[in-house]
Amino acid sequence: MKRKQIQVALIGAGRIGKLHGDNILAQLTEVKLAAVASVPIEAATEWAALRGITRVTENYQELLEDPDIDAVLICSSTDTHAEIIIDAAKAGKHIFCEKPIAASVPRIVEALNAVEEAGVKLQVGFNRRFDPHFAKARELVRAGKIGELHLLHITSRDPEPPPIEYLGVSGGMFMDMTIHDFDMARFLSDSDVEEVYAAGAVLVDPAIGEAGDIDTAVIQMKFANGAIGTIDNSRKAAYGYDQRIEVFGSKGKVSVDNVPESNAVLSSSESVISEKPQYFFLERYQQSFVRELQAFFEAVSENRPTPVTGQDGLEPVLIALAANLSMKENRPVKLDEIRKLYGL
Amino acid sequence: MKRKQIQVALIGAGRIGKLHGDNILAQLTEVKLAAVASVPIEAATEWAALRGITRVTENYQELLEDPDIDAVLICSSTDTHAEIIIDAAKAGKHIFCEKPIAASVPRIVEALNAVEEAGVKLQVGFNRRFDPHFAKARELVRAGKIGELHLLHITSRDPEPPPIEYLGVSGGMFMDMTIHDFDMARFLSDSDVEEVYAAGAVLVDPAIGEAGDIDTAVIQMKFANGAIGTIDNSRKAAYGYDQRIEVFGSKGKVSVDNVPESNAVLSSSESVISEKPQYFFLERYQQSFVRELQAFFEAVSENRPTPVTGQDGLEPVLIALAANLSMKENRPVKLDEIRKLYGL
Amino acid sequence: MKRKQIQVALIGAGRIGKLHGDNILAQLTEVKLAAVASVPIEAATEWAALRGITRVTENYQELLEDPDIDAVLICSSTDTHAEIIIDAAKAGKHIFCEKPIAASVPRIVEALNAVEEAGVKLQVGFNRRFDPHFAKARELVRAGKIGELHLLHITSRDPEPPPIEYLGVSGGMFMDMTIHDFDMARFLSDSDVEEVYAAGAVLVDPAIGEAGDIDTAVIQMKFANGAIGTIDNSRKAAYGYDQRIEVFGSKGKVSVDNVPESNAVLSSSESVISEKPQYFFLERYQQSFVRELQAFFEAVSENRPTPVTGQDGLEPVLIALAANLSMKENRPVKLDEIRKLYGL
Amino acid sequence: MKRKQIQVALIGAGRIGKLHGDNILAQLTEVKLAAVASVPIEAATEWAALRGITRVTENYQELLEDPDIDAVLICSSTDTHAEIIIDAAKAGKHIFCEKPIAASVPRIVEALNAVEEAGVKLQVGFNRRFDPHFAKARELVRAGKIGELHLLHITSRDPEPPPIEYLGVSGGMFMDMTIHDFDMARFLSDSDVEEVYAAGAVLVDPAIGEAGDIDTAVIQMKFANGAIGTIDNSRKAAYGYDQRIEVFGSKGKVSVDNVPESNAVLSSSESVISEKPQYFFLERYQQSFVRELQAFFEAVSENRPTPVTGQDGLEPVLIALAANLSMKENRPVKLDEIRKLYGL
Repeated sequence: MKRKQIQVALIGAGRIGKLHGDNILAQLTEVKLAAVASVPIEAATEWAALRGITRVTENYQELLEDPDIDAVLICSSTDTHAEIIIDAAKAGKHIFCEKPIAASVPRIVEALNAVEEAGVKLQVGFNRRFDPHFAKARELVRAGKIGELHLLHITSRDPEPPPIEYLGVSGGMFMDMTIHDFDMARFLSDSDVEEVYAAGAVLVDPAIGEAGDIDTAVIQMKFANGAIGTIDNSRKAAYGYDQRIEVFGSKGKVSVDNVPESNAVLSSSESVISEKPQYFFLERYQQSFVRELQAFFEAVSENRPTPVTGQDGLEPVLIALAANLSMKENRPVKLDEIRKLYGL
Repeated sequence: MKRKQIQVALIGAGRIGKLHGDNILAQLTEVKLAAVASVPIEAATEWAALRGITRVTENYQELLEDPDIDAVLICSSTDTHAEIIIDAAKAGKHIFCEKPIAASVPRIVEALNAVEEAGVKLQVGFNRRFDPHFAKARELVRAGKIGELHLLHITSRDPEPPPIEYLGVSGGMFMDMTIHDFDMARFLSDSDVEEVYAAGAVLVDPAIGEAGDIDTAVIQMKFANGAIGTIDNSRKAAYGYDQRIEVFGSKGKVSVDNVPESNAVLSSSESVISEKPQYFFLERYQQSFVRELQAFFEAVSENRPTPVTGQDGLEPVLIALAANLSMKENRPVKLDEIRKLYGL
Repeated sequence: MKRKQIQVALIGAGRIGKLHGDNILAQLTEVKLAAVASVPIEAATEWAALRGITRVTENYQELLEDPDIDAVLICSSTDTHAEIIIDAAKAGKHIFCEKPIAASVPRIVEALNAVEEAGVKLQVGFNRRFDPHFAKARELVRAGKIGELHLLHITSRDPEPPPIEYLGVSGGMFMDMTIHDFDMARFLSDSDVEEVYAAGAVLVDPAIGEAGDIDTAVIQMKFANGAIGTIDNSRKAAYGYDQRIEVFGSKGKVSVDNVPESNAVLSSSESVISEKPQYFFLERYQQSFVRELQAFFEAVSENRPTPVTGQDGLEPVLIALAANLSMKENRPVKLDEIRKLYGL
Repeated sequence: MKRKQIQVALIGAGRIGKLHGDNILAQLTEVKLAAVASVPIEAATEWAALRGITRVTENYQELLEDPDIDAVLICSSTDTHAEIIIDAAKAGKHIFCEKPIAASVPRIVEALNAVEEAGVKLQVGFNRRFDPHFAKARELVRAGKIGELHLLHITSRDPEPPPIEYLGVSGGMFMDMTIHDFDMARFLSDSDVEEVYAAGAVLVDPAIGEAGDIDTAVIQMKFANGAIGTIDNSRKAAYGYDQRIEVFGSKGKVSVDNVPESNAVLSSSESVISEKPQYFFLERYQQSFVRELQAFFEAVSENRPTPVTGQDGLEPVLIALAANLSMKENRPVKLDEIRKLYGL
């Protein structure tokens, strides 16, 4: 039996939107990238033309009205995510949305409600879950290879801080950067975070502090299943993108080390010299971007739940809020305290 | 200035031909895959249709006559390579040809002469030179990091032997499998092999011996620059595709280890367990197939020599012949002895 | 000029006392192990006789009165350390004392005062500082290779919990086990811990919880120099003794991984199998025990300060007390709060 | 039952003799180092005095006449080994002798005959068999973990060539340096070498060539069990002592990599920097020297065969002779050709 080809519209054609578009064209041949909505339209039109896509619009609503479109990829700026989710859900389209759903919890809840009412599928773009290295680690954990979870550590350091001007609109390091790690913590532990204690510092660049943000942090987490975990963040690791995890339990541990730029090793009269980790997320997580879309389209065509649900999109935001409060007041903060604030 | 898009015809649409075709479509967007020639035509037509390529023929000559076609990729069966090279050269097309150019030395020479007379470019498909790990190793060697070359070792073991019926037409292990390693030896050493001593054995499967071939070998080489090297081959490594190199010189060494399926490591009460190497050449050398075409098209559009010349296609065949003779007579064989045989 | 041979008396000939004694005999030939004091005397006498040491007594005071004895190694039970330090100091003997100096802060202070008044040297047995791997890491840190310190992590997990009956007298996990890690944190950071936040759990064995202790913990530390650090402890790592460190700063990081039982690696049809870490502290830190004595005797004979001072013996105890309070009250605790309690 | 303490005499107190002596004193407390014979006597006397050994002589015969001496360690210069073995055998002493037994095959045979007639035990000092890493590798091989042996590779490179003046008396690189690797090949393969093909070169230092020796070599071996192997030697690896092995068979492979000076790894903005291998044989094989004596004394006290027999001492010499002939005549040489030369 031949499966009907899924038709998808791309909403937002910035860096990540184009990346998803090219991945569909090159590697997900069972999906058709039927149309692109983007503001402003010019750059997107050129990009699309080179790829044989002629349907480009500034008005995404137009695409939502097309009954041939099965799904949308929302890659526009964060402040538009919730509105587009709500519109797409009402139009009966399945939704892949870049993280975060929204900066505000009530807005996220509103979007999730719209999705639930419409009965469409929603997948949030926590791509690192689809990294083959981390996915293998989780597979081993779920297969019982480490027994009961005791400790979990995530190291997550960027090679360079973002531009200072970006920091003002980023929502702060926990919401902008650590959010991926909060998701990874839930993914690897198969549990929810119940309490966090966060320590932050400005050690990389005083300008980051002046912009009201931090650049270095350690966040401690207590999980619902009794385990304890940490996340370690820096906005600048001199040796490059440092992305490692360790999951320790009653029967052993699983760890994932960095992926070097190449395996060439030079032994000299001074030392043994290996290459640095792959430069940044586009290199390190290249495969994960393809695989997350693959998983989304499989969920759509096989009518199964998506592997990163709306709830998975909400929880890291709550943890980030708890971490912010913890750092501000230098005390452990229970997630329930945050949930109560928002009537959850 | 905008560069004219190169139009390329694919001749032969078997496994490797399709792989090249898909790589062009997905990752070499500056090149246009304009047409496909394949016998029989049916499977190729379906494959091409799914990719929006409508020009498919059983008659490659037809494509050579098209003045819009700039280059051909020859991916047909080995016994057709030389003829197509000669025809394509006469038609003034640039040529990328899968290895080997031909099974017989005179036929290779004939093809190379045709290429030379026509003044077209020829690149032979020794893809491993474009593997980022080995390419980095060579870059370090050429940058003088190991000083003068003293020793060179290539480990090259397959995860599974080919079907026994294939062995009869393979030309023997040295011509079929080691040929890549002979090329790698020349690539890494930046030198020619002057003498070989080869020991072969049937240790993996007696049926391979009954088919007149070997499955295990060690080939020792003396290089023109005075260095000594070895190649170690097995048709079956239980743990998978084993592809390593080591280049040792007066100032140090460069080595490349295998690439594991993932970096996940499990520490259990028994041992510390890592993943096996990537399964076989399609996984291990995935990037090299894209990069060799990239290099070919760059050479064409910038009118530079290709990085794997016709001579680079001939030399490994001569070394394989020397290795066969060495093994048969259990004595070191000079390449000059082979060259004389063919009046080279 | 030939240096006078140092004469040393061993006080306490249990496991660690005998280890030090044998290390002196085998590897510190410039020092003479002149006498042993041990209660009960029988086992010590036999052990000493086999090594040609005939002077064995139950009364360490006797040895302190001997003007030929230059130094003592205090390896008796913890509750006797302070008293023997005070007696030895008064007798003008240099002192190497196993950690901890005492379980109570006032008693430690009393002992340190006695040492200071007597002007003798005191070295506390934080042997891990002398591990060649960690010592090399610190050397790199002090040489400025990682720039300014930002983050520090210590992983410290035992292969097996101690007997339950021992836990009652151990002083709790932070005082008994983490104390080494608190010292390592100070050693690697070259800074003092200002605040701790400790989370503990009973995940390994409920009997440990019934004995009033924990078996799993993560302790977060803020250092005087602004850096943030963590210590991760478990009483039972299924794969063995896990002793790793990572020191991260503005210019890079230094890390030390475990030392495997051997470098033999088996690649099988299932996976790539390495050996587990060396079993426990006697194997892993074997060299450190020799080197700490070497450093002590060098400090004595060259009249330099010892590399692990009395203050270095006191600080980890204060951090452990802060960690206990933090865990009990689930709040960050400043070291100053503990210092004030003891009028320090 | 308490075992009688073995009394041993050390004959020859140069570097290796003193090393063995100190190892006995420090770590083999069940053995008594009763006497030392050394020419000239002065240095040995001082060394012995510091260790409480008062019986020192220039005349080893004197010690052979002492009925209390059970065994001798022959660590004198190579040209004296055979004579002392013969004398010691006649005196009924068990013998541990440094390699090689002698430079000449007939002399070795004479010594082995004397040992056999006397019925005493003889162990030859091929210490690398007792290296814990290589011993583990062999244990895995013998446990069937790699199935049937197919390929074996030994990498053996020194950090520095010996003094040029030494080369004249060394017997040539194969006899002086590769001899250890020939033994390792037999040890790991559990088989005999039947044929060798050796290529040598002078690439490190022309002065070595002028002294009539080589400094770089690759030796290919065919084993009695059908496997093929190589040894790779260099007198100078810029990055230090390179001692690795790989044993490949039908079910997998076992490999042993170098042991670094420490596990500290620095990640900088340039690269990831590890430490070089341990400097030379005294560091790398430290444990093996203790363990070979332990094994010898166990064989003596339990009346079992020694783990490195006289035959194990002879075979590598025959292989070295075959390798010399092979290199000289540039042809493969069967061991039988050498055996016939000596009527073996």
